[in-house]
Amino acid sequence: MTEFVRFKNINGDIGAGLLENNGSISVVTEPFWEKVELTGESVTLSDVQLLPPCQPSNIICVGLNYRSHLGGRPIPDPPLFFFKPLSSIAGHGDQIVLPDDAGRVDPEGEIVVVIGSFLQRPTLAQAEAAIFGFTAGNDVSAREWQNGDGQWWRAKGSDTFGVFGPSIVTGLKFDSLEVKTFVNDTEVQHGASSELIVSIPEIVHRVASVVTLRAGDIIFTGTPGSTSPLNAGDIVEIEVTGLTLRLSNSVT
Amino acid sequence: MTEFVRFKNINGDIGAGLLENNGSISVVTEPFWEKVELTGESVTLSDVQLLPPCQPSNIICVGLNYRSHLGGRPIPDPPLFFFKPLSSIAGHGDQIVLPDDAGRVDPEGEIVVVIGSFLQRPTLAQAEAAIFGFTAGNDVSAREWQNGDGQWWRAKGSDTFGVFGPSIVTGLKFDSLEVKTFVNDTEVQHGASSELIVSIPEIVHRVASVVTLRAGDIIFTGTPGSTSPLNAGDIVEIEVTGLTLRLSNSVT
Repeated sequence: MTEFVRFKNINGDIGAGLLENNGSISVVTEPFWEKVELTGESVTLSDVQLLPPCQPSNIICVGLNYRSHLGGRPIPDPPLFFFKPLSSIAGHGDQIVLPDDAGRVDPEGEIVVVIGSFLQRPTLAQAEAAIFGFTAGNDVSAREWQNGDGQWWRAKGSDTFGVFGPSIVTGLKFDSLEVKTFVNDTEVQHGASSELIVSIPEIVHRVASVVTLRAGDIIFTGTPGSTSPLNAGDIVEIEVTGLTLRLSNSVT
Repeated sequence: MTEFVRFKNINGDIGAGLLENNGSISVVTEPFWEKVELTGESVTLSDVQLLPPCQPSNIICVGLNYRSHLGGRPIPDPPLFFFKPLSSIAGHGDQIVLPDDAGRVDPEGEIVVVIGSFLQRPTLAQAEAAIFGFTAGNDVSAREWQNGDGQWWRAKGSDTFGVFGPSIVTGLKFDSLEVKTFVNDTEVQHGASSELIVSIPEIVHRVASVVTLRAGDIIFTGTPGSTSPLNAGDIVEIEVTGLTLRLSNSVT
């Protein structure tokens, strides 16, 4: 099990590294998808700002992928996918901004797949092999816009609504992961990848059958259970198996 | 009136330039958004491959924005926006690929706005001032997926479904543009920006109120009239006022 992070140091320099048990980061060269090369340098986690752990060219999400989240709605057939724009990206420690006129905005804690290689019209086995690792995601969702707009562009794509990080964990089986959401330290969601209606390799396979994926692209795999509204001042955190840190964001 | 292009020469080098009346390209330095600097070099249009004229970080589209395209459907309130992924980009001369299992796929000829500066929560006047120019677009659409999927991710976002180019024209008024679509040299669509339900500055204003835009981002403004299916072997072309070349693609 290895954890990759990207960071900015006090001089503004950006780097990537392996998050070690002792709170240090062993710097590696980028890109790290195919081969991990240590530079020999090390930085201390508390001295740097963590950035989103990769730079996707596409962000794809799955909707309604846990029975516990269906709330009486039928299982989507075919499975329900949508995009978030790159402008929506927010990282660990960034503020989630509630739009003035959005009404209710909910967090959605999710397991996020990180793709590690170019992937176009793969077999299911190739799709599974292209999974680099997993990170935590918060698919922030404006419910009134989601219910009223038809297409979910602003409901799911407003600035700061695409939260992921802080690390990518590798070496874990796709069906062995758990995800928990906390608001102000109270657990509000809990699910497991073994409960997903469309499994993680099948998600990757379906997406890459029409949308070419590249190393660093990410797929949000759906949220479990029910969700509740965020308020300005809340702290929302997503915990995923294997990640040392919870993905943590304040709300404004 | 100036026309910007990006190109790849026979050595694989990529550049940008102004398309001149005589078929030459006066090379400029990139980025060209704020200031146009001629390098003094020139290349011949027929010696290079034209690329998409900018590299967007976001592609936003408007749906149902001409009365002539409503076909009995109500005017969307609020206006209907959606995203195309960057992986869907195809340029002038690229093939449009019909997915095996998509069924009917239609072209949608559109006027495309190119944003020239960072734009976040602008006033309407700031939104209009951030318009750099216009290009032609083909919002390729798989109708069965569009009608059946709910979210239009693959209906509008499959590989090669986000076609735009070949040049960006500047110096034209946003309400003075016409767009025509030709399939195998027969005109199949014809519209004008003066007929848009949501005007071009208003589109930019609405999008940038929730989605931060950057120089090079593009917005497809909607398609006029009715559309008809593409077949393998077709040549589809989009003509927009001020662009010397039609955006031309073969279908496979």
